[in-house]
Amino acid sequence: MRKGVIRPGHIQLRVMDMEEALKHYRDLIGLIEVNRDDKGRVYLKGWTEVDKYSLVLVESDTPGLDFIGFKVLNDDVLNGLKNDLIEYGCEVSEFPAGELDSCGRRVSFVAPSGHTFELFADKEQTGKWGLADINPDPWPLNLTGMKAERFDHCLLMGPNVPATQALFEQVLGFGLSEQVVAPDNTVVAAFMSCSLKAHDIAFVDCPDPGKLHHVSFLLETWQDLLKAADLLTMTETTKDVGPTRHGLTSGQTIYFFDPSGNRNEVFCGGDYYYPDHPPVTWKAEDLGKAIFYHELYIHPTYLEVLT
Amino acid sequence: MRKGVIRPGHIQLRVMDMEEALKHYRDLIGLIEVNRDDKGRVYLKGWTEVDKYSLVLVESDTPGLDFIGFKVLNDDVLNGLKNDLIEYGCEVSEFPAGELDSCGRRVSFVAPSGHTFELFADKEQTGKWGLADINPDPWPLNLTGMKAERFDHCLLMGPNVPATQALFEQVLGFGLSEQVVAPDNTVVAAFMSCSLKAHDIAFVDCPDPGKLHHVSFLLETWQDLLKAADLLTMTETTKDVGPTRHGLTSGQTIYFFDPSGNRNEVFCGGDYYYPDHPPVTWKAEDLGKAIFYHELYIHPTYLEVLT
Amino acid sequence: MRKGVIRPGHIQLRVMDMEEALKHYRDLIGLIEVNRDDKGRVYLKGWTEVDKYSLVLVESDTPGLDFIGFKVLNDDVLNGLKNDLIEYGCEVSEFPAGELDSCGRRVSFVAPSGHTFELFADKEQTGKWGLADINPDPWPLNLTGMKAERFDHCLLMGPNVPATQALFEQVLGFGLSEQVVAPDNTVVAAFMSCSLKAHDIAFVDCPDPGKLHHVSFLLETWQDLLKAADLLTMTETTKDVGPTRHGLTSGQTIYFFDPSGNRNEVFCGGDYYYPDHPPVTWKAEDLGKAIFYHELYIHPTYLEVLT
Amino acid sequence: MRKGVIRPGHIQLRVMDMEEALKHYRDLIGLIEVNRDDKGRVYLKGWTEVDKYSLVLVESDTPGLDFIGFKVLNDDVLNGLKNDLIEYGCEVSEFPAGELDSCGRRVSFVAPSGHTFELFADKEQTGKWGLADINPDPWPLNLTGMKAERFDHCLLMGPNVPATQALFEQVLGFGLSEQVVAPDNTVVAAFMSCSLKAHDIAFVDCPDPGKLHHVSFLLETWQDLLKAADLLTMTETTKDVGPTRHGLTSGQTIYFFDPSGNRNEVFCGGDYYYPDHPPVTWKAEDLGKAIFYHELYIHPTYLEVLT
Repeated sequence: MRKGVIRPGHIQLRVMDMEEALKHYRDLIGLIEVNRDDKGRVYLKGWTEVDKYSLVLVESDTPGLDFIGFKVLNDDVLNGLKNDLIEYGCEVSEFPAGELDSCGRRVSFVAPSGHTFELFADKEQTGKWGLADINPDPWPLNLTGMKAERFDHCLLMGPNVPATQALFEQVLGFGLSEQVVAPDNTVVAAFMSCSLKAHDIAFVDCPDPGKLHHVSFLLETWQDLLKAADLLTMTETTKDVGPTRHGLTSGQTIYFFDPSGNRNEVFCGGDYYYPDHPPVTWKAEDLGKAIFYHELYIHPTYLEVLT
Repeated sequence: MRKGVIRPGHIQLRVMDMEEALKHYRDLIGLIEVNRDDKGRVYLKGWTEVDKYSLVLVESDTPGLDFIGFKVLNDDVLNGLKNDLIEYGCEVSEFPAGELDSCGRRVSFVAPSGHTFELFADKEQTGKWGLADINPDPWPLNLTGMKAERFDHCLLMGPNVPATQALFEQVLGFGLSEQVVAPDNTVVAAFMSCSLKAHDIAFVDCPDPGKLHHVSFLLETWQDLLKAADLLTMTETTKDVGPTRHGLTSGQTIYFFDPSGNRNEVFCGGDYYYPDHPPVTWKAEDLGKAIFYHELYIHPTYLEVLT
Repeated sequence: MRKGVIRPGHIQLRVMDMEEALKHYRDLIGLIEVNRDDKGRVYLKGWTEVDKYSLVLVESDTPGLDFIGFKVLNDDVLNGLKNDLIEYGCEVSEFPAGELDSCGRRVSFVAPSGHTFELFADKEQTGKWGLADINPDPWPLNLTGMKAERFDHCLLMGPNVPATQALFEQVLGFGLSEQVVAPDNTVVAAFMSCSLKAHDIAFVDCPDPGKLHHVSFLLETWQDLLKAADLLTMTETTKDVGPTRHGLTSGQTIYFFDPSGNRNEVFCGGDYYYPDHPPVTWKAEDLGKAIFYHELYIHPTYLEVLT
Repeated sequence: MRKGVIRPGHIQLRVMDMEEALKHYRDLIGLIEVNRDDKGRVYLKGWTEVDKYSLVLVESDTPGLDFIGFKVLNDDVLNGLKNDLIEYGCEVSEFPAGELDSCGRRVSFVAPSGHTFELFADKEQTGKWGLADINPDPWPLNLTGMKAERFDHCLLMGPNVPATQALFEQVLGFGLSEQVVAPDNTVVAAFMSCSLKAHDIAFVDCPDPGKLHHVSFLLETWQDLLKAADLLTMTETTKDVGPTRHGLTSGQTIYFFDPSGNRNEVFCGGDYYYPDHPPVTWKAEDLGKAIFYHELYIHPTYLEVLT
């Protein structure tokens, strides 16, 4: 949080059938539906999240990512970062307060990777879902499905990973927690953190700009991942890979797809990051081990199926 | 990390018999012994820690805490915070680089609670113990005992909790993650964070200044806590409470004592904190539930046995 | 199963308020309510049980145990064991088929400990709850509370433990899996198995005949015990001890009370038993460690509160 | 245990390099080496096993299974079963006491599937490894690798599954716990139990007689399976599939190969079986789900690589 960016605060995702998407994100993954707006967007959150929502679903003809928003400390930080982005050469635009439900004004920019990001300083805080403000229990009753705790991070694919990494480091104050380095020393994957988390955002090199590889939700334990994998089979949801462990971050993971083809991850565990830590380095020629530590190879679809 | 304070970097603890203490902290808790200095101090760390060490044991006639050191981002931050501490009215002194093994200069001050803290910007980084720099495995072989991952936090007892809280908030940039509030609205316990952790330091009100309630080490899972409790019985180590869950932070915990009577905690899980989160509040009249969520009461010794 | 006794098949328990009892056994422990009969008895089961039910609740002015029924292989075994019991000197009576819902005739006898047992060869099998007969999923959706898997065993207190043990060994073919032995070599606690389980029934010495110490339900993991302990606090259910580990059997456990004061256990893990295994022996002078391996002592109420 | 057969007591396995095999079974899987004999055979056991050993490794030019031995209750049972096997039409031979270390005489026969089995009534019992006879701790220190608890079962492939199943049911008193049934109602896989375990032995149809599909060792938890999978990568051991869940038995599993190409499984959890339970049925056309519940398909090698 060297520059006042706190966390990934929300993601707007395109889905092709809202009711099918809600069966998936709400009933299966276990996110809480908190609101719908007059544009037909549906707002959801993980139960541990204090903000009103973190996932915005919007119906569309194509799946994929509209934008990811990072929450910053306050309006002064927002103004400062807006100027810094402009000075750094980014095209910056702004959405007024209220365009997104219960959210203040948002400063939007496109990264060299082709992805749209935004910064905001205010969003209504409704508290952890289902828990009292005073003497709260450790978890709420009536959670469903995988009982996802929070929207955690995204892995994005696109060109210009080094330039994107530089923007996130220099302007937004992120650190490089882990990296995959090609034999010529190019960084082909950059895992970046603005917190203690092993990654708040990750970029992997590919020719097509603006691609979503996966959006990731945190579960509590490896035992919960087992039950999550069971639920994928019970609900005939298309699984991609897992349960397994990542080499990168050493987290435990399952990948699967929402009904529109957007890849999801549920994960738990893994390493932590401090801003004075040197990045953990993986060799691109060992990418199999880096991504799937138990399998040691990558299904071709894993790098090719993007939205 | 609003003011550049990264983490609790080390604690110097007084023990009455070094070899007994090493059987406890190294062989039982599973910390790694990394060095001894010419003053007879022994340096240890948890295997996930990148810094060379985090626990310094020193032989003495009495148990207890000498000081806790926080690592800051860099020397500029260190100089700035030194000035801020002086301006805030703290008595500040300084230790030269090298007084503590492989550590840069340290700026020392005493908090209103009577505890000695210090700030430092440099310490040798030797990397996670037993892991390669490139393509690291998720964990090293040859760990012993409880396989503690890191020194995580301390809970300290003393007077002037509100003043100490104010110092940590205003000068050092910590946030108040959780609090216990008396019926007259006095804060009698302040859990404070400079990171995503639910607490990097905690203060609880008591008349005697400078007291250590416990020093806490992170384990990976609730399953590891079960095995840790087993090890306490196998090694005839005096257990205090647990395995159980805290209300405060909702972490899972065991308390026990080192051979000199210093209270230790091993814990896992629990809540996370962001600087825009309002503090979680517990009522002092429900302190039993706040501390031991399953037991709902506090053994008198838990609040009385301090070092 | 040396004499054809398969398992503890049911227990009839007296409760003082049926609706309160159902909130406890059905909603909190997570047993499935399967039927009620014209005597007002309510029948329940754990979801993994193939038989129609295993717990029978009956309203009464006093809490406690009416009887425990063991299922035997077939009617020939039932007739043979009836004769063997009579020859051994037991007072034997019989209940006709249908007296207990969907259950065949039951041969009833009183053990020297003062507890009433019965044997039966037939009960309707309705299959695991919520699972298909063909290609079953690993677990059903819509379980509640602690999601107890099965009624597992009881611990009973009364006089004449050695005589009761002899009856179970010689007539019913049980084996002695674990024992607590007094300095004079008297067996003061006998854990007995007719299967691979560490105990299907246990007897502990006390002067009052026919007492129930606890009825025990199996959970899947130590993680489930954590959540079960959380639920006890959330529902303001009176906990006795745990989560902790037993020395005896090395299982993991929580004790608590139903609204009528009957002690329940939920547990997981622990040792297994084969009929050629010598009994595991604990010394009565180390009973604290034998029962509560982490605490090393026994709350007086644990041995005194019986129903 | 309807006919007095207690458990799979040992398996003799052919390995092509004993020192490599010991690195695998002892150091990686964590079995205890207990003896070597003058034929160069090495004897090992899981730490929870009371018998002196359960795995016998013998050096050979080809990998595979020599025989599996079942322990029976006593010598009378052994004599009775020998006669029953002869009457049933089996070719029976006998090995004298001592041919296998510390083991009594063994009655050997070949099943219609082409596998050699043997029965024995006596083997030295050395107790659980590393634990005291009185007041035993729940687990021993100094276990290595995966800390396998016991040799649990084998899955064997060969012709004549129905005839083999009939032999195990009618002569040896096993029950059919789970089955895979072809559209023409042929049983193509039979999971058989002489205990509460979901399987003590399993047979799957294939044209070649006497083939070993895998030998399986029990681990304690799903968390231990994660660490086991990590160890496979750390030791560059060839993994086949997992961590994942089986449909059949619903156990959790990892498959991998020993250095000679014999397939191993480590597993935990899963269903239990009583002799009055109807078999759980899976359709052969859903074999993917039956075997790998999360993957829903079977790698061709899984059914083809046999020893």
